[in-house]
Amino acid sequence: MSSSSAAPRRDGKAEAVAGGKPPMREALVAAAFRLFVERGYERTTVDDIVALAGVGRRSFFRYFPSKEDVVFPDHERCLADMTAFLAASSQGDEPVRRVCDAARLVLRMYAENPAFSVQRYRLTTQVPGLRAYELSVVWRYERALAAYLRGRFAGQPDGTLRADVIAAAVVAAHNNALRSWLRSGAQGDAATAVDHALGLVQSAFGPPAGAIGPGEPGPGEPDDVMVVVSRRGAPLWRVVQEIETALGRP
Amino acid sequence: MSSSSAAPRRDGKAEAVAGGKPPMREALVAAAFRLFVERGYERTTVDDIVALAGVGRRSFFRYFPSKEDVVFPDHERCLADMTAFLAASSQGDEPVRRVCDAARLVLRMYAENPAFSVQRYRLTTQVPGLRAYELSVVWRYERALAAYLRGRFAGQPDGTLRADVIAAAVVAAHNNALRSWLRSGAQGDAATAVDHALGLVQSAFGPPAGAIGPGEPGPGEPDDVMVVVSRRGAPLWRVVQEIETALGRP
Repeated sequence: MSSSSAAPRRDGKAEAVAGGKPPMREALVAAAFRLFVERGYERTTVDDIVALAGVGRRSFFRYFPSKEDVVFPDHERCLADMTAFLAASSQGDEPVRRVCDAARLVLRMYAENPAFSVQRYRLTTQVPGLRAYELSVVWRYERALAAYLRGRFAGQPDGTLRADVIAAAVVAAHNNALRSWLRSGAQGDAATAVDHALGLVQSAFGPPAGAIGPGEPGPGEPDDVMVVVSRRGAPLWRVVQEIETALGRP
Repeated sequence: MSSSSAAPRRDGKAEAVAGGKPPMREALVAAAFRLFVERGYERTTVDDIVALAGVGRRSFFRYFPSKEDVVFPDHERCLADMTAFLAASSQGDEPVRRVCDAARLVLRMYAENPAFSVQRYRLTTQVPGLRAYELSVVWRYERALAAYLRGRFAGQPDGTLRADVIAAAVVAAHNNALRSWLRSGAQGDAATAVDHALGLVQSAFGPPAGAIGPGEPGPGEPDDVMVVVSRRGAPLWRVVQEIETALGRP
């Protein structure tokens, strides 16, 4: 993997916010990662980075508050995108599906530049300080998802509890799939793996498949029960068929 | 809240590990918290703490690697207890219930000394460095639970995914209840609140209530019956999984 391939894609939006000189931010990230890989993260100073990038220290700190921040150059933009996406939700959006879609924004950021993402993943697993930084970033994503769900579940029994648990489950499912993909060196389709992982959360916490949408009368009271009585020797397909019939599913 | 009530209970086990002088560790924690409350965490140095406790710097670092560690004096013991508890599990233990029981060990640690726990919670919400430290501790609990579940789900479809998601859900549920209790100033029964929160996770991921466990009834009777009782909203895959388990099929 060459150091030039490690530079993240130019991100017009973030650059415009940061000060109107797109190549400098990109050059700082590329220089930083080249040095992190060559010398190690701890032995690279901000002075080393700016010397290689050919800019002054003040330019570095205009883009990044600290050396740690240059490792995660796009998380602030992604957090802002996620917050905006959730704020733009309507009451018609099914909440669990909505937070799953919000999590996919993070995956998209990683998938924009697989080589850079893999390199950063390896760096993060090796440097304890970066692990701690990443935990705090993950925590902020989780709180953004939980805040949205708390709003949607406001006034419902266990609303904040369900919001926190679902947000944590979404983040864990997303990260399980993302990290498998990063560990593999970005082989295969990350989006498919993340979709599958988030499907588990939706099946656990979202409305049952075939459920009637919010506001419409449901197929029974929330606490009603289904009882299947079967001889133990009955073939499994017949038991499943009975369950599907009882639930009114095809 | 007096500073003396803020000292954590003496913990014979941890003291024995740390070096056989029970009162010194306790005195250091009490002195540290008295200063943290009076002057603030950032403005308190290790020198201040040892001066108030009447011991030397070396004594402090014999018990605590850093100033941060004195804020969380019992997490290492609790992590060790959790790991030992999970390692002592049998194949007969239902895995989701087992990780919920493991999480209750953390609650018990907080509930041992409510005044100290409330004081620490307030400190942690105010000091960013302590928030980061706490996130890393929470992460270690979550990984301990996930490692156990990964072992139990080994070879099953989506085994590591389900392990990670359930571990995150357990931690989020536990912390939702724990933090509500801490925010309230330790009013009410924390154990009941945590039981209720963990019940949500068990209903989402554990076996359906009322399912007959494998091996309980004699499987040989041609006319015996299996009864699955489930809420209508339970995801179909989980119902099917339980049936497979009850029937002893892979």
